Amino acid sequence: MRPYEKDPSAIYAQSFATVRAEANLDRFPNGLDRLATRVIHACGMVEIADRLAFSEDAYTVGHHALAAGKPILCDCEMVGAGIIRRYLPAENEVIVTLNDPSTPDRATAMRNTRSAAAVELWEPHIAGAVVAIGNAPTALFHLLDLIDQGFPKPAVILGFPVGFVGAAESKAELAANPRGCEFVALRGRKGGSALAAAAVNALAAGLPEDRS
Amino acid sequence: MRPYEKDPSAIYAQSFATVRAEANLDRFPNGLDRLATRVIHACGMVEIADRLAFSEDAYTVGHHALAAGKPILCDCEMVGAGIIRRYLPAENEVIVTLNDPSTPDRATAMRNTRSAAAVELWEPHIAGAVVAIGNAPTALFHLLDLIDQGFPKPAVILGFPVGFVGAAESKAELAANPRGCEFVALRGRKGGSALAAAAVNALAAGLPEDRS
Repeated sequence: MRPYEKDPSAIYAQSFATVRAEANLDRFPNGLDRLATRVIHACGMVEIADRLAFSEDAYTVGHHALAAGKPILCDCEMVGAGIIRRYLPAENEVIVTLNDPSTPDRATAMRNTRSAAAVELWEPHIAGAVVAIGNAPTALFHLLDLIDQGFPKPAVILGFPVGFVGAAESKAELAANPRGCEFVALRGRKGGSALAAAAVNALAAGLPEDRS
Repeated sequence: MRPYEKDPSAIYAQSFATVRAEANLDRFPNGLDRLATRVIHACGMVEIADRLAFSEDAYTVGHHALAAGKPILCDCEMVGAGIIRRYLPAENEVIVTLNDPSTPDRATAMRNTRSAAAVELWEPHIAGAVVAIGNAPTALFHLLDLIDQGFPKPAVILGFPVGFVGAAESKAELAANPRGCEFVALRGRKGGSALAAAAVNALAAGLPEDRS
């Protein structure tokens, strides 16, 4: 078998160098290039750089929210599992309510998905927090509906729901009207938990060279 | 805001119908079309159908391994978090050794990554088991090296490491020489934990219509 790179630092450095060489990051201001780099690294697709929508201060505001100790609200366990805890600046709480015992009954009563029902349980935590959606379009749609009805607003919404039903539409709605929140969203069908978690990790820690 | 689909069954049905309409699944034998459908659903990319390499009996052998109670070995916590426990036919154990306390020192001694070191801890569990790699190329490379040195063989290797350094190469090595194991691998840079977990979920449960 051919030799392969085994040094973690060299792997990171080569990876991020490839992103910088192949992706067009010039249009990302205020630290968002770091977020884009980590998201691209998480999926191996430089082409998504051209499909990331964002508000100008999403990185700065998200970074400060974490530094201030605000929690991170995730739509599924995989996003929570991908958040690198040692990066978090204030031992921030990572909250996933999808498997709360009340969620199935709430979903039935709402005539919506469990993912949407779980968002309602974010109410005591969401003001000024970081939201990371990596799976369910219905979670993002319902969050936007709730905000329209007066739900407290998060500082930043990281919109990476994935798939063929509602993913593109929910992210387009977020980008068209972020309801006064900062946001990053990957337009189209692509997305996923790894991308949402990578976006959180970027808000927390930038890139490895920021930390050396 | 426009109305959106809120019924989980309808969302699944529309999603899988889209996959069937847009992806070419004709070349997948023996249940592998179900695995391909779930993997595509997990990433929103029908185009990956043409980049999946596999051995003919990977689905059947993996399905039977799970039915026989064999464990699932994952290279990272995110893959483990994406495995839907209620699908597992025998309350199969999901094992992630990446954060074992011995892993960092072992990695240093090996001059390899923590992901590679963690694979060595699979030895008591791996014979006839299902391996799901969704993050680290070094985990897949090192597993293949270990098998070459007489390590016990898993029944199936689900190869979905992602990224710019070693991902394409490790999956090409698996596809070129699967060492007598059944396998599925997504060629190229793309991959990730959600895809690896989706492949496990397919081995466990097929598609939703298989269960109705």
